[in-house]
Amino acid sequence: MLTRTSTQSLTEQLAARFAERIRNRLLPPGTRLPSVRECARQQGVSPHTVVAAYDQLLAQGLVEARRQRGFYVRDSAAAVQEGRAQGAVKSVAMPLPVDASSLIRGMFHRQSDKPQPGMGVFPPDWMESTFLPTSLRRLTGTRALQELSLQYGEPAGDAALRRSLSQKLVSINVPAGPEQIITTIGATHALDIVSRTLLRAGDPVMVEEPGWAIEFARLESLGMRVLPVPRRADGPDLDVMAQYCEAHAPKLFVSVSVFHNPTGYCLTPGSAHRVLQLANQHDFHIVEDDTYSHLAPEHATRLCALDGLQRTIYVSGFAKILAPNWRIGFLAAPPAVFGRLLETKLLATLTTPALFERALAWCIDQGQLRRHADRIRIRLDGARARTVKLALSHGCTFVSEPAGLFGWVDTGVDTDALTQRMLDEGYLLAPGSLFHARRRPSTLMRINFATAQDAEFWKVFGRVRG
Amino acid sequence: MLTRTSTQSLTEQLAARFAERIRNRLLPPGTRLPSVRECARQQGVSPHTVVAAYDQLLAQGLVEARRQRGFYVRDSAAAVQEGRAQGAVKSVAMPLPVDASSLIRGMFHRQSDKPQPGMGVFPPDWMESTFLPTSLRRLTGTRALQELSLQYGEPAGDAALRRSLSQKLVSINVPAGPEQIITTIGATHALDIVSRTLLRAGDPVMVEEPGWAIEFARLESLGMRVLPVPRRADGPDLDVMAQYCEAHAPKLFVSVSVFHNPTGYCLTPGSAHRVLQLANQHDFHIVEDDTYSHLAPEHATRLCALDGLQRTIYVSGFAKILAPNWRIGFLAAPPAVFGRLLETKLLATLTTPALFERALAWCIDQGQLRRHADRIRIRLDGARARTVKLALSHGCTFVSEPAGLFGWVDTGVDTDALTQRMLDEGYLLAPGSLFHARRRPSTLMRINFATAQDAEFWKVFGRVRG
Repeated sequence: MLTRTSTQSLTEQLAARFAERIRNRLLPPGTRLPSVRECARQQGVSPHTVVAAYDQLLAQGLVEARRQRGFYVRDSAAAVQEGRAQGAVKSVAMPLPVDASSLIRGMFHRQSDKPQPGMGVFPPDWMESTFLPTSLRRLTGTRALQELSLQYGEPAGDAALRRSLSQKLVSINVPAGPEQIITTIGATHALDIVSRTLLRAGDPVMVEEPGWAIEFARLESLGMRVLPVPRRADGPDLDVMAQYCEAHAPKLFVSVSVFHNPTGYCLTPGSAHRVLQLANQHDFHIVEDDTYSHLAPEHATRLCALDGLQRTIYVSGFAKILAPNWRIGFLAAPPAVFGRLLETKLLATLTTPALFERALAWCIDQGQLRRHADRIRIRLDGARARTVKLALSHGCTFVSEPAGLFGWVDTGVDTDALTQRMLDEGYLLAPGSLFHARRRPSTLMRINFATAQDAEFWKVFGRVRG
Repeated sequence: MLTRTSTQSLTEQLAARFAERIRNRLLPPGTRLPSVRECARQQGVSPHTVVAAYDQLLAQGLVEARRQRGFYVRDSAAAVQEGRAQGAVKSVAMPLPVDASSLIRGMFHRQSDKPQPGMGVFPPDWMESTFLPTSLRRLTGTRALQELSLQYGEPAGDAALRRSLSQKLVSINVPAGPEQIITTIGATHALDIVSRTLLRAGDPVMVEEPGWAIEFARLESLGMRVLPVPRRADGPDLDVMAQYCEAHAPKLFVSVSVFHNPTGYCLTPGSAHRVLQLANQHDFHIVEDDTYSHLAPEHATRLCALDGLQRTIYVSGFAKILAPNWRIGFLAAPPAVFGRLLETKLLATLTTPALFERALAWCIDQGQLRRHADRIRIRLDGARARTVKLALSHGCTFVSEPAGLFGWVDTGVDTDALTQRMLDEGYLLAPGSLFHARRRPSTLMRINFATAQDAEFWKVFGRVRG
């Protein structure tokens, strides 16, 4: 928010705010800035301040004025060419879906104090606990700390944590010994390691759609051919998968079985069985992303459990329940691919921080994490009930039965445009296009049940949607 | 080491030790195990124990007996096929130089208490300090800890650390503002991000040779075409580079200017100027790996300083001076490529742990790190003098003037075979083949001046080399 007590003038603050959004591509090239009058109203400043701020953006080459039509964000290609003329080299980076990754960046880094319905995690205060600080302080005595800091540590990850994780996995019928587990920088890194190990550029890979934007973007940045598989209430569309297998012989299927993101669907045992039959028949691997395992019902169906970790690789992490910035994830893999997965970890990051891993092991072993998850599940149930009521009363409908952390709702309007307008009001949404491999515009959006239970948000939503 | 007080029998311990080495491919397929008599001598156990251990390995399918010739490690391809027959899928991982990455794994994870001349870092006791624990304990108060744990944190990395790093860079004439810096999981991750962003599979990339094994292995695993550039005392071979530029139009050059690994060479200003001219003429980027910056002389020449970070990207980290397992590295990049590098970080790991980053910022800001580096440099000077004397007296010659952390020595015998034999004695070497893009066997090896100043090692070395 703009503030009169800042050392910067209101004009400078406003210009800086737009400049950052343009650089982050939250305002992509070609976007029209709000009219001077509209912007002045939104920001609570005078039209004169807005005109001066737009002038600064013009001088910085970030926007262009089109006669009678207002100010538009300049094409970044033009900006790059300009940079090149000044001596910088041409960017040869791979084409990523830039708007998606900018929105995603926003999802992880709060830009405002308002609750953000597009966020992918619980609000920090939900995750507060007394055991987290305790778990870490136990290890900050000089000797333990130096032991855990001054050597690279085990390539596969802290042995104590791998033992704890193994027990956790066995308890959900995924038979993984500690020697089959590799710790990673969050589940994201685990999925990255799996793709890089099992696929080469140009390889076809099946991914559920709707699905998580980072998975699509990463696979594309690695040059893979993404084959989107429609996700149904009971599991992936098996007919589509069978056709892909015949036509493309994909090597990998990326799947979220439990509380699928964004739909909240859970895989049924029958569907799981048929997916595994297909994998056996067509000889592909499956990576099962179990990021939401901490919120899962007790008898949830997982491919890795049915398969006994033969051609499946299990991935999960602790960002959704304990501490997003500790960046702890892991994978559990069949012995036949373990060595190569470990090599990829080494080539990408060498080892991972053992201090956090050891602290997490304690949280698991003491039962603290389980009790913490129990509390959060109960709190989430209450939040979900309130959010569902608010969403329905504002004309949204649920595409899938509300469950887990996310709701998948139909707003009735284009959510790309809506997201842009809500950003101006200080709210981050997660538009449906983010969850489609080709970023197809849609009227859907994902809401976080924990952060969308705020009446003020829905009031603004109702006004902006019109 | 085997121990009689363990819960495992000596046979089990010995079998487990070989099995681990085979699985890690420290003993690659086709390797002959030591004779029963030789192994009994080395391990201080009875021949009966060795026979029983070899029998266990045979039963596990890890080795095969060849009549009259002893036991040989089985071909892992056969093992994989067997796994496949048992229902596991064929491994489709990219072909990595497996022996290299196994040796590298050994370099980061100590398997023995003996000093390891092949290691890539200082021994832990060299890095001990009182300020490291202090820096972390300052942040383990409940409020600070939760602030640094319960949100993903800034995508580019902790702002306090990026400010400190910016000041450090400006002090060595690399003009990087905090907004040009991205923190990473060690320098390895920074180099990984740069390759993934600027190159696509199949792209040609120039890398100095001899050079760091992980760089070769990573680029190959990503499908890049590695063009090795001979590294001379003053810098890379410019004639070879010019030929590559004409023939292949490479997009990137990977270089270590200061205390090049493994030679210890430092780039001269004249060579730096000509490298940059070539880069301008042929429009390629340069990533300068300044991992050994903490040991560098004050007026060391860096490409990023001459170039002003226009077509150069700076990479460094803190594993070689402060805390390897904190896994803090960073890159500083021109604005034209910054956004895409940040996207790659997000796609690979999202954010990085802010707690360690904030603690490191304090160590830098308080001048603690600088004083610590001063002490280590003095200690290293002493160790280098002793190691050089020992190496020379054991018939080794230095290929390059001893400087920095590593010595590049000629042993007069094939160092691949020597490495295998020294492993049996409990010592890890870094054979010359590791530092060549095609793993060409050589009589050279890299020694760590800090860990090779041990007379006992050189005695064993002299005996084994013969």
